[in-house]
Amino acid sequence: MTHDYNQEALDLHKLHHGKIELNTKVPMNDRDDLSRAYTPGVAEVCKEIARDPSLAREYTLKRNTVAIISDGSAILGLGNLGALAAIPVMEGKAAILKSFAGVDAFPICLETQDTEEIIKAVKQLAPVFGAVNLEDISAPRCFEIEERLRAELNIPVMHDDQWGTATVVLGGIINALKVTNRGEGKDVKIVVNGVGSAGVAISRILLSYGFTNILFCDSKGIIHEGREELTKEKLELISKSKLKGFEGSLADAVKEADVFVGVSKAGALTKEMAQSMNKDSIVFALANPIPEIMPDVAKEAGVAVIATGRSDFPNQLNNSLIFPGLFKGVLDGNIKQFDITMFTRAALTLAGHVKNPNTEMILPTMFDKELVEVIANTVI
Amino acid sequence: MTHDYNQEALDLHKLHHGKIELNTKVPMNDRDDLSRAYTPGVAEVCKEIARDPSLAREYTLKRNTVAIISDGSAILGLGNLGALAAIPVMEGKAAILKSFAGVDAFPICLETQDTEEIIKAVKQLAPVFGAVNLEDISAPRCFEIEERLRAELNIPVMHDDQWGTATVVLGGIINALKVTNRGEGKDVKIVVNGVGSAGVAISRILLSYGFTNILFCDSKGIIHEGREELTKEKLELISKSKLKGFEGSLADAVKEADVFVGVSKAGALTKEMAQSMNKDSIVFALANPIPEIMPDVAKEAGVAVIATGRSDFPNQLNNSLIFPGLFKGVLDGNIKQFDITMFTRAALTLAGHVKNPNTEMILPTMFDKELVEVIANTVI
Repeated sequence: MTHDYNQEALDLHKLHHGKIELNTKVPMNDRDDLSRAYTPGVAEVCKEIARDPSLAREYTLKRNTVAIISDGSAILGLGNLGALAAIPVMEGKAAILKSFAGVDAFPICLETQDTEEIIKAVKQLAPVFGAVNLEDISAPRCFEIEERLRAELNIPVMHDDQWGTATVVLGGIINALKVTNRGEGKDVKIVVNGVGSAGVAISRILLSYGFTNILFCDSKGIIHEGREELTKEKLELISKSKLKGFEGSLADAVKEADVFVGVSKAGALTKEMAQSMNKDSIVFALANPIPEIMPDVAKEAGVAVIATGRSDFPNQLNNSLIFPGLFKGVLDGNIKQFDITMFTRAALTLAGHVKNPNTEMILPTMFDKELVEVIANTVI
Repeated sequence: MTHDYNQEALDLHKLHHGKIELNTKVPMNDRDDLSRAYTPGVAEVCKEIARDPSLAREYTLKRNTVAIISDGSAILGLGNLGALAAIPVMEGKAAILKSFAGVDAFPICLETQDTEEIIKAVKQLAPVFGAVNLEDISAPRCFEIEERLRAELNIPVMHDDQWGTATVVLGGIINALKVTNRGEGKDVKIVVNGVGSAGVAISRILLSYGFTNILFCDSKGIIHEGREELTKEKLELISKSKLKGFEGSLADAVKEADVFVGVSKAGALTKEMAQSMNKDSIVFALANPIPEIMPDVAKEAGVAVIATGRSDFPNQLNNSLIFPGLFKGVLDGNIKQFDITMFTRAALTLAGHVKNPNTEMILPTMFDKELVEVIANTVI
């Protein structure tokens, strides 16, 4: 079962020169075919779109095509490797969108990391696309870029590192509370460790869903009003939680917590910390490739539900569970924009799609053949 | 034989929602496949490219992918219809590139018509592409955009309305001179009518190839040094021709001319003008959809070789004869940049590919199965 995926990945990418290709979906065999697909017939199609721009959705690839846009500033867990090195990840997402949801997607890796330049570039190249998937753009720039593009573009925009992750985490928590007999449990104590792009979106969706008792931690420990130089995102989060006045380290925060969500770094949650949580605790240790705590250690510490980002342990929480269905939904439904209520509905649908969740399977896998359709229908 | 291509084109585009789609070229069926195409394996590919950026050509779609870029300012003969209305033409070119040359191409229709903004946008989105095909961008902006991008980008850039047309015209003239027994005929008198994007490039390649006796005309007649407000392109062209000191109308220009090349407007060359040309004259009437002179009228006026841009007459001169092979050549050969000597070689190859040219067939058709390979090899 153990593969050297590194070497196999290099071999695969070299053999095919990447993972996606452009194909024609109309006949191109003779002069008649070309007269319909190209000149002279195509002129009539251009004129119709000029007359009514909404027809671009009917007559062109725009209807089913997503731009996957990165500046290469936060590639996977590798950091800022730049535009060229981002291509394999973006091609991978395009391959997933087509294979799992039938959605066409093209990777755009931008040779700029300036917030205003990125916003302008995406607006300029948007006409041919039906939606925008922002990807691997570092915090805090990712927040402004997404917010501004949603306001200034007339197609749906989603930063998947934020909302794909947040949606899956909310779905996972809903079912983890169920399997640990906490019911809806909106008053459980939750600790979110790491408030980068994923951490902020996770915190926002948890607050929006109705969880009230959340402590937020970063590398300096519990985030509280007394600390200096807090970003506007951190100030927003702590203003919305009922747990006020707490200071201290992550170890202080997790005492008697019911849920730990880590989007931070390898080994951040020690066995002792896990032992200090409430009985039948829930731990989502999502740092990649090495989680905040290894599943076997968590189990020894009394954790009831342990989830990671990895495919080699049970309960893999992965954006791929959700983004194919979300994009299929907004494209097929001609939805104007993503919003947090849509992500919340998708999380509930994701959770509800598992008939009998248990501690080893709180969510479906991405190979569940009905999943994309179910999520897309929720969006529409 | 008569079709209503307008309605058939609308029906075709609506049925398929455009003409191209993105497909995966690697297996995506199970967790193992995804571990190679996506995480965790893809991280190794990203790291390799970060270490050596030239490997993007080996490991990604960059190697075989062209950006087809337009701002919608000069769509076919329709004028400035904007970015959305340009999509069907750009998709059509993408479909031709894949069907005829196996080259992947993606249409980018930019929501800006500012020269500096276009240059910046193309540079920012270039990393994922192996070459750039500029398309349907109006003169004179197209000259600066192409020139600057060639200087500032490290991938080949070609404005097809200029160089595709110019290459085909040069190839056509070479064979038309042969079939009218003029030999190489570098001293023949040529009139170029229309000095927009195509006219300037045609003039440049004819001068570069060695034709010396050329008169250039625009809507005000013969271009000469005494006229006011000449563009730098017009000044450059007249400075390179040996035919100096001529003034007057197009009718004056074509008297005793051997070759007329029109990239101007319907009906610009009257029967009387054609009759005033030298015996066995050559007329390329490339205005679309209605040429400068209809073929039957030209024949009555004594023209020996008449070519148009239309598929319903003999001697169709069309960029599609040449751009698939040119792009395949620069991609496969990892050629750094297009230049006029490459276009000249391609024109000679195009002309030489017709074994026995005659007045009704001076060039091959784009359905000639060897053509793309032959042109690509010339480039390499």
